[in-house]
Amino acid sequence: MKFCSECAQPVTMIIPPDDTRLRYVCSGCGMVHYENPKLVVGSIPIWDQGGDTKILLCRRAIEPRMGYWTLPAGFMENAETSAAGAQRETEEEAGANIALHDVFTMMNVPHVHQVHLFYRATLLDLNYVAGIESLEVQLFSEATIPWDDIAFPTVSLTLELFFKDMRKVREGGSFGFHAQDILKPMRST
Amino acid sequence: MKFCSECAQPVTMIIPPDDTRLRYVCSGCGMVHYENPKLVVGSIPIWDQGGDTKILLCRRAIEPRMGYWTLPAGFMENAETSAAGAQRETEEEAGANIALHDVFTMMNVPHVHQVHLFYRATLLDLNYVAGIESLEVQLFSEATIPWDDIAFPTVSLTLELFFKDMRKVREGGSFGFHAQDILKPMRST
Repeated sequence: MKFCSECAQPVTMIIPPDDTRLRYVCSGCGMVHYENPKLVVGSIPIWDQGGDTKILLCRRAIEPRMGYWTLPAGFMENAETSAAGAQRETEEEAGANIALHDVFTMMNVPHVHQVHLFYRATLLDLNYVAGIESLEVQLFSEATIPWDDIAFPTVSLTLELFFKDMRKVREGGSFGFHAQDILKPMRST
Repeated sequence: MKFCSECAQPVTMIIPPDDTRLRYVCSGCGMVHYENPKLVVGSIPIWDQGGDTKILLCRRAIEPRMGYWTLPAGFMENAETSAAGAQRETEEEAGANIALHDVFTMMNVPHVHQVHLFYRATLLDLNYVAGIESLEVQLFSEATIPWDDIAFPTVSLTLELFFKDMRKVREGGSFGFHAQDILKPMRST
């Protein structure tokens, strides 16, 4: 950020009065421009046929992590709920018709200023199709998921937790809600 | 938003190519300025003495809803986790020493572009003190909570759910996780 979005004068990075953090503050009108974490919302589209459970993944057509596999997800928009956003992203990226269930994971990713939410979802048919941000979309069982080519740690962890909970469900348990933090590994020197 | 924060030229509200929503787009450099929902994070500070459960509330010293009571909460900051933000806001607004537990409610408030998260917390001592954004802080039992003077619907609902779950816990149950949407009531004409 270089200029004030209200008056076009240059901004400087200072700690405003009654604050403890560096903020972009306008050198002209004095407006403080706060920056806050963004929500990324997505789904775990589940296709189950006779106990053979598969998950729909998208191969990314855009950076970051182009060519790697992800659950359908994207930035939550103003004026929508997190569930509506998860459903919208699933339609946009995977062309998938889903019935959304409970939120399953909430993961803080503080080094990129994001919080990721993934909802369990039932895939309603096989008429999915890659959206503009996907190279391809494909169903994977736990054994065939390209674990080494998953785009983001929140997606790997959500998939691992899903299959772990699924085994509990088959033994009479229920799906949980999982809140975790993905902290950037310290660089070894 | 009136001007581009990168080049100071005027922005216009248009639907960019490959998009479906109105965005602020710079008339000079073409940058799209996205706006996304913000996270509000807070805690339910619980003081329990011999089964007499009380909650610490803050009376707001600032708008909106100045003079009304709230759970300590505020906007999540970049580079922090939602739990760290909830703990920080509790310290800032109520001067309270807490041990944070699991996230208890997640509430979408789409008409103000916010998602609110409240964590259960144990108040560790009675050395709380009103911060700069609070007129006073005070412990309330369920019967004495000023229900008609609560600042925000997400706070009322979180408190209601807390006392409801607390009765389950006393009968051997456990606290749940509650995801809900607070939709603006339609205006009657």
